[in-house]
Amino acid sequence: MIVDSLLARAAAADATSPLRHCRDRFDLPAGLVYLDGNSLGALPVAARDAMDDIVGRQWGHDLISSWNANGWWDAPLRVGDAIGRLVGAAEGQVVVTDSTSVNLFKAFVAAARMRPDRNVLVSDPASFPTDLYLLDAAARLVGAVVERVGPAELPDFLAERGDEVALVAVSSVDYRTGERWDLPAVTRAAHGRGALVLWDLCHGAGVLDVGLDEHEVDLAVGCTYKYLNGGPGAPAFMYVAERHQEHLDQPLSGWQGHAEPFAMAPSFEPIRGVGRVRVGTPPMVSLLVLEKALAAFDGVEPITARTVSLSLTGLFIDAVSELCPELEIATPLEPERRGSQVSMRHTEAFGVVQALIGRGVVGDFREPDIVRLGFAPLYTTHREVVVAASHLAEVLASGEHRLPVNQQRSTVT
Amino acid sequence: MIVDSLLARAAAADATSPLRHCRDRFDLPAGLVYLDGNSLGALPVAARDAMDDIVGRQWGHDLISSWNANGWWDAPLRVGDAIGRLVGAAEGQVVVTDSTSVNLFKAFVAAARMRPDRNVLVSDPASFPTDLYLLDAAARLVGAVVERVGPAELPDFLAERGDEVALVAVSSVDYRTGERWDLPAVTRAAHGRGALVLWDLCHGAGVLDVGLDEHEVDLAVGCTYKYLNGGPGAPAFMYVAERHQEHLDQPLSGWQGHAEPFAMAPSFEPIRGVGRVRVGTPPMVSLLVLEKALAAFDGVEPITARTVSLSLTGLFIDAVSELCPELEIATPLEPERRGSQVSMRHTEAFGVVQALIGRGVVGDFREPDIVRLGFAPLYTTHREVVVAASHLAEVLASGEHRLPVNQQRSTVT
Repeated sequence: MIVDSLLARAAAADATSPLRHCRDRFDLPAGLVYLDGNSLGALPVAARDAMDDIVGRQWGHDLISSWNANGWWDAPLRVGDAIGRLVGAAEGQVVVTDSTSVNLFKAFVAAARMRPDRNVLVSDPASFPTDLYLLDAAARLVGAVVERVGPAELPDFLAERGDEVALVAVSSVDYRTGERWDLPAVTRAAHGRGALVLWDLCHGAGVLDVGLDEHEVDLAVGCTYKYLNGGPGAPAFMYVAERHQEHLDQPLSGWQGHAEPFAMAPSFEPIRGVGRVRVGTPPMVSLLVLEKALAAFDGVEPITARTVSLSLTGLFIDAVSELCPELEIATPLEPERRGSQVSMRHTEAFGVVQALIGRGVVGDFREPDIVRLGFAPLYTTHREVVVAASHLAEVLASGEHRLPVNQQRSTVT
Repeated sequence: MIVDSLLARAAAADATSPLRHCRDRFDLPAGLVYLDGNSLGALPVAARDAMDDIVGRQWGHDLISSWNANGWWDAPLRVGDAIGRLVGAAEGQVVVTDSTSVNLFKAFVAAARMRPDRNVLVSDPASFPTDLYLLDAAARLVGAVVERVGPAELPDFLAERGDEVALVAVSSVDYRTGERWDLPAVTRAAHGRGALVLWDLCHGAGVLDVGLDEHEVDLAVGCTYKYLNGGPGAPAFMYVAERHQEHLDQPLSGWQGHAEPFAMAPSFEPIRGVGRVRVGTPPMVSLLVLEKALAAFDGVEPITARTVSLSLTGLFIDAVSELCPELEIATPLEPERRGSQVSMRHTEAFGVVQALIGRGVVGDFREPDIVRLGFAPLYTTHREVVVAASHLAEVLASGEHRLPVNQQRSTVT
């Protein structure tokens, strides 16, 4: 009865969703409820259909001439601009290059060099670990001190020691809890004490209305294989606000960031603009697949993706609250405080995730006790939201998550 | 007449080449003489044919489960071992990760940290520029001094200042002249003074019998998109000799190099073994394409590739000497001193390369005066070698290289 009512609500939402035409832009396995697009986005049809052209024609036939004839050389900036549109960055400020981890390192060292009179680099202790590891690595090389301060405690910290802080690094969405941090407020607070701000947009790009330019963010990085659907390990992006580009002194001074890369000069001289964060030759097949994949966002404004995302997560939270009210939801219930995932705490979270996968509902487990479900506004339907919540309730009610995997109900072979 | 005689010699060599069965492993445009495999290797059929599986099945259908079910997580080490076989490295010493530039940075900083009592990093001034730029970048961060010393001058330099040297970085083949450096001798000379050695194998892997283990090399890097045919910008590789792995302290401590990557620990602890040079999530599509591309080397021993390479370059040098004896060959004529390319100096080198491309012979130009032709032993035929030399002679004899491109003879549309 409750489920029927939820399904009716879902049907109405799906019928009027401004993104209802986007589901067909993806090649998803029939019957699968895929709620792990926050880990690996689904395959866009445009990417699948471009492989013959990318591999057969561009590489196989045009060979080396593709660097010019097929626009390979400019692709990091061209695809960067396409991503820029989705995170509120005007052209010429985003480059697709390397991995998020490598870009974090570049940004951390560059930020420290931009504030030579300040010695403290701040990061959220709840950041994805690679953010913490690379900040430690950068600090060690530039002789800075790392302080781990969460966004909630940041105002007090800045009030006390803000004049020592070169950089504040924060993630737009907590990868475990799904909490969304207030980007404008944190950015303003850091700027108020003269610090730079870096945003890790891995869990924000494609689902939040980020507004990098509008909020005067200094630096940002993010991956492209989650909600941007760029393919497994697709190269990451890096944003450098135009006002900082001329002075940006990043540590990985590779030949593709040189002012005259084919002059083969003996010393490094960075190119003007954001292209100076390029390093080596990019993985072109992955990069071109990403470019094609971004076509799934054609005509989609960030605010629309955000609206649909909130509709999906809101429905899921309501459904869980009705169907399994005992389950602890770790994600903030206030819409403005959540990203595009809903995380739940359960002492047997791993078993719950496995049981759901067995039923064809794919989410993931995060240490130590998190069931994490991601809702991709371009292809997740409201109906799937209710189906997932219904399976979750059935699993918990039946104790299926305590059974060995081979005794769980399975709809997936 | 001369050409006929050369063609006869080529036919005999092709008929008996131990790699004559390998040409069919590549999808090359009909009629094109592609001598730029030292810049971008040709498309292996196995890579082309794997795209549906990689993109459609692994990404599109199996989605996130591919990290385990399709071996994505282990791919950097698995593909690394496949490359290891081609450069004389036993298993567990090569990882495919990042770009050559990024790997150089890791290696440079790590090497400096392995020799904390030494302050000098040595590189060949004729290295590919990115090697120079990244060495400068690393030296700046670790407080070391860079000395640019070529392999020929290295013995004298080491005799004088060897006890200050932490690392000697050399390329196996000079990217401009095609000169091959004596890896065993340079390595021994550096070791004799207690220095570490890094070899850049970008122009060596797949065409030289490198023998990293045999010659006790410490560190090596290389790209995979030249003679390894891994696809444009395919991820690079990095070799760390087993004896150094336990102490290797590389600066880009990303989560994929962590001992327990999914424990999400707050501090970095490197995994045992060469996996510690992994950083972020690798570009899986490009990496899996590379893996399939390496099938073109099935059954091919490095010494066989080297033998055929020398046969090709030797024939080309003979043909040029007979057909256009006035042309200055920049590559050493002694077989043991050359890699797998032949470079020629010409005051109008750019025009010569353009005229050749117009005739369907693809090579490349390198500043300031180099015509560079690469010979890939797996797919270049001896017949093509003679055809290329013949076109080159015709271009030079006719002055075609001085004409505007649209007035040159063209066989390519």
